[in-house]
Amino acid sequence: MSMQVPQGFRMAGVHSGVKRNLSRLDCSLVVSDVPAVAAGVYTKNLVYAAPVELDRARTPSSGFRAVAINSGCANACTGERGLRDAEQMAAAAAATCGASGEQALVLSTGIIGEFIALDKITAGLQQCAAQLGSDETSLINAARGMMTTDTVHKVAARSIAIGPRTIQVTGMCKGAAMIAPNMGTMLGLILTDAPLSPASAQAALSAVVEDTFNCISVDGHMSTNDTVLLLANGAAGGAELSGKELAQFQSALFDVAEELSRAIPADGEGATHLITIQVVGCKSRSDARQIAKTIADSALVKTAVAGADPNWGRIVSAAGYAGIPFDPKRVDLTVNGFSLYQQGAPVPFDADKVSSSIRDNRDTSIILTLGEGTEHITFFTTDLTAEYVRLNADYHT
Amino acid sequence: MSMQVPQGFRMAGVHSGVKRNLSRLDCSLVVSDVPAVAAGVYTKNLVYAAPVELDRARTPSSGFRAVAINSGCANACTGERGLRDAEQMAAAAAATCGASGEQALVLSTGIIGEFIALDKITAGLQQCAAQLGSDETSLINAARGMMTTDTVHKVAARSIAIGPRTIQVTGMCKGAAMIAPNMGTMLGLILTDAPLSPASAQAALSAVVEDTFNCISVDGHMSTNDTVLLLANGAAGGAELSGKELAQFQSALFDVAEELSRAIPADGEGATHLITIQVVGCKSRSDARQIAKTIADSALVKTAVAGADPNWGRIVSAAGYAGIPFDPKRVDLTVNGFSLYQQGAPVPFDADKVSSSIRDNRDTSIILTLGEGTEHITFFTTDLTAEYVRLNADYHT
Repeated sequence: MSMQVPQGFRMAGVHSGVKRNLSRLDCSLVVSDVPAVAAGVYTKNLVYAAPVELDRARTPSSGFRAVAINSGCANACTGERGLRDAEQMAAAAAATCGASGEQALVLSTGIIGEFIALDKITAGLQQCAAQLGSDETSLINAARGMMTTDTVHKVAARSIAIGPRTIQVTGMCKGAAMIAPNMGTMLGLILTDAPLSPASAQAALSAVVEDTFNCISVDGHMSTNDTVLLLANGAAGGAELSGKELAQFQSALFDVAEELSRAIPADGEGATHLITIQVVGCKSRSDARQIAKTIADSALVKTAVAGADPNWGRIVSAAGYAGIPFDPKRVDLTVNGFSLYQQGAPVPFDADKVSSSIRDNRDTSIILTLGEGTEHITFFTTDLTAEYVRLNADYHT
Repeated sequence: MSMQVPQGFRMAGVHSGVKRNLSRLDCSLVVSDVPAVAAGVYTKNLVYAAPVELDRARTPSSGFRAVAINSGCANACTGERGLRDAEQMAAAAAATCGASGEQALVLSTGIIGEFIALDKITAGLQQCAAQLGSDETSLINAARGMMTTDTVHKVAARSIAIGPRTIQVTGMCKGAAMIAPNMGTMLGLILTDAPLSPASAQAALSAVVEDTFNCISVDGHMSTNDTVLLLANGAAGGAELSGKELAQFQSALFDVAEELSRAIPADGEGATHLITIQVVGCKSRSDARQIAKTIADSALVKTAVAGADPNWGRIVSAAGYAGIPFDPKRVDLTVNGFSLYQQGAPVPFDADKVSSSIRDNRDTSIILTLGEGTEHITFFTTDLTAEYVRLNADYHT
């Protein structure tokens, strides 16, 4: 199915010169023909980039006309000048559609600790303005303009009927790890023509991000620029969504966010496996998430999967140090459907068969079942390969 | 200086057959000629091994005559039978010196999820009993009997005058990471002829471990078997240490524990750098430790050091997600004595010069200074290399 852009949004992506490689897009512009509501969810890192500071101060609110995006430079750890640069970048984007500077938001990703090349980006945004479109190619170009070491662009879309209206939710994101030297961050931008209040937009986005973008990890290193924005321009018409209609919208938003978020570890640096970790039978979702994240961040679990090693001891022991109380005697574990551990004790299994199933599939499924409650979570991560180390250790390349 | 064994302790290490390689020692016995006080600090992992369960229940207390040690099998995740096996192993060690089963402790390390070969270990302990010695060779053999993938044995000793007495503190430990397949754990055993009450021994050990063995990490994966034991047999004579004398003893204990603990990341799997992370200017030591540990566990910081990349952004951003509040505008960072970041902003530096200093030295120094207080910590870790990944991913070797 072809990717549709929500009504009233147009976009483009170009090569502005921030990146040296001429074939790489590095600057994108997204414009809403009518003022849009915007909500945002940002990195929890105390050391956050200038675009995060700007967007966080401006959202949730309404009246937005543009989002300026660049890759190749994160505008992070750049002090007061960095914040002024981000404001200038927003103003340049707003100017292309006759709006004022405060009506735009900014997303930057790339090298930490360098100032952005404002002249190149301003020219790039003007070039984008001349190419704006609402077709699939325009969407993909805008998504390509935010890529760093991503090997594929990442877009997702859903169309849903809500009452008499058809609502479109379309998003893009980037992210493959933090990468050599000093590269960073995951960015997401989701657009919809649904009519939403700023408060509803923020509540829906926050809820959805918690179970999607906050349930992925490549290397456990939280970046300075992580941002997910939702823009809702109401072009589908009608009154602001509420009640059951809002829940329907949030369900579509969840699907788009989940598809986008899963695409990040699937494109993880050097990764040979996408690992899906389900932790079930917990007292709370946050318990389940903490255990899943601890397993996902274990270098020993990740290398075991890379080596097709059905090493249940590493998985169970990682759960044990997650800081969440549970009864170890009520733990079950399956890997790729094979039961390896039941009620706190190992069970006999055909190690070669399980190893083959890991080696021969890109997807690895880990299901850890506790006996503490009924809450559960699904978390996505990658394996850890020598290629990841090489990509992140090669300073002089 | 030659390594002295505290008065009244004798020891040995042999090949019992738990490991296949005949040149590898895998079973050690430490005997105290008179009943000793014992204190222990254990893994915080909820999933802990049978020897941990046994030792934790028995310490701190007095009357101990023996410690039985084996490598090659961790006796972890082995249920009730594992606990009975650990009791049998303790009893076999106690029997060699005519003591009862409860007068011994057990240390095991190696593969998780397999039962120990009690017959081989019992025979090994008897073989040890026939070879007990108090010279440096006996000490080193006992230390070799607890090694897994360690490339060197790890011992340390201090002799101090306390009042009219000379007190000896001598320790051994093992650890290089958790390793393929299913290997694990760090173990430490520290002996002294100082007279200590069980409560003083436990308090001194707990305090010292917090700032030594709890300040190291290789891959951030807490094992199921981590144990540090202190045995004090009082053979140096005199009354139990207290007050200033106890403080003097604790200082020597700290030196031994620090030297031993530092030897573990120095021998980290695949490591090409020992990284010393000092975090200073914190509100509390636990704040400092949490920030240091977060930096130490970042795959991106570790790969940067492996690649001789003076990548301050990765270090500062790791501190930012440690979960400890601080003012990012009051952060300074030096690497190998070069100032890279001051008062929350990058400073110009000669990247090639800093890179050379990382590449050309096995030791890397990272000093992160916050402006929050006066507490500080020193933490040791390794870099992350493709060799580490290969060691931990090679299931079929």
